[in-house]
Amino acid sequence: MADRPKILITNDDGIHSEGIEALERAMLQIGEVYVVAPESEMSGASHSLTLARPLRIRQIDETHWTVDGTPTDCVTLALNQILAPFFRPDICVSGINHGANMGDDATYSGTVAGAMESTILGVPGIAFSLASYRSHDFTESSRVALEVTRKALVDGLPDGTLLNINVPKGIPKGIRITKQGFKSARPVISEHIDPRGKAYYWIGEIRDGFRAEGGTDFEAVDEGYVSITPMRSDLTSYDAIAELKSWES
Amino acid sequence: MADRPKILITNDDGIHSEGIEALERAMLQIGEVYVVAPESEMSGASHSLTLARPLRIRQIDETHWTVDGTPTDCVTLALNQILAPFFRPDICVSGINHGANMGDDATYSGTVAGAMESTILGVPGIAFSLASYRSHDFTESSRVALEVTRKALVDGLPDGTLLNINVPKGIPKGIRITKQGFKSARPVISEHIDPRGKAYYWIGEIRDGFRAEGGTDFEAVDEGYVSITPMRSDLTSYDAIAELKSWES
Repeated sequence: MADRPKILITNDDGIHSEGIEALERAMLQIGEVYVVAPESEMSGASHSLTLARPLRIRQIDETHWTVDGTPTDCVTLALNQILAPFFRPDICVSGINHGANMGDDATYSGTVAGAMESTILGVPGIAFSLASYRSHDFTESSRVALEVTRKALVDGLPDGTLLNINVPKGIPKGIRITKQGFKSARPVISEHIDPRGKAYYWIGEIRDGFRAEGGTDFEAVDEGYVSITPMRSDLTSYDAIAELKSWES
Repeated sequence: MADRPKILITNDDGIHSEGIEALERAMLQIGEVYVVAPESEMSGASHSLTLARPLRIRQIDETHWTVDGTPTDCVTLALNQILAPFFRPDICVSGINHGANMGDDATYSGTVAGAMESTILGVPGIAFSLASYRSHDFTESSRVALEVTRKALVDGLPDGTLLNINVPKGIPKGIRITKQGFKSARPVISEHIDPRGKAYYWIGEIRDGFRAEGGTDFEAVDEGYVSITPMRSDLTSYDAIAELKSWES
């Protein structure tokens, strides 16, 4: 590409998070960067779209906007409103999320959803996560983001495919192409009492690891590799179609 | 099963919607029914989980509760808090949504997400939608919900599989097992100005139909059949894994 590529950045931790700043610094090395991100934390926002209320867009400067909504809202507003009169980005990168998005957690992830939304709208999307809550060091994950985004811009991505990338803490041993695994976890609801004596609840979970299975995101990260899981917005269980065929009438 | 089955109901249109009332009336014919649903409309909520704030549970009577959150919140609170001390439901049904949940829209759907959450937590889940915005007649969709839920309770569902069911308006010609199709649509953002002169935006879309392809949810409903799409929470694009193998290092 003759011009510098135009890169849209979003995330679900909000525009003031360390991860999005690290991602922007990395992307500025290869292209023009435009950030459209939630004004506050939207973790667990999944692929939700705000339909029941209007949204506000706040322009911070020439290349930064916030939206009072989800990562999916940000991407659809970026591509259809904010940037639409001027250009279409070459790629959309989402993250870097602080914490892993592996296994079923990918289905709850706003970070993954941002990349999925851009893919649905025809712009290749990649989600990046630092697979560690303890580490705040985005050095290696930024390097991976730079390398993978550059490659995706040159080679392109398979049709309708987004990439969900989890980077281990420390220096990665290499890259593995993986499938979504299964976490072993148990939801735990904690009950608290407010100052007026009324109960409220927080959703949490206790994790005991992941299901041992070859080729998964969990396995790759556990062994110190960057996990790249190609994903799609098709939820169909093709195996089950044959199994249920006898239900037809 | 000797006892009457225990059926958990949720939805994303909220506890006061016509669709959930129709579903409850149908389910009461085959089992004990427990309703845990959002207190207000959560359309487009997707598989989002409320992690950044606490949730309130309001008990209406012995078998009805509301949650100030998403369908996913409702299901996790139902299974891990509200009903947990007493029993585990045999099945979770979500809906009946007023409007279709087909193609990529399934990924934005709170109705589908409710069934996905229960499936992840080990309780078979089925999502029901009336594939018409104009019709408010839930007679046929209720009949389908009754028939399919009864069958799922007897036969079981394939492991890790939820069903996404869309019922056409009118009297269905039969049942088709389908895959998720592709809608042909264009997002449209409408800009408005508030009384203080500030802009706000609503996300909408213009639909021109669906991609002609055999065996999809869209095709089945268009031809007057009930569409049953088996789904899973695995977003992996298995086809793309081989294609990206050369990216490994």
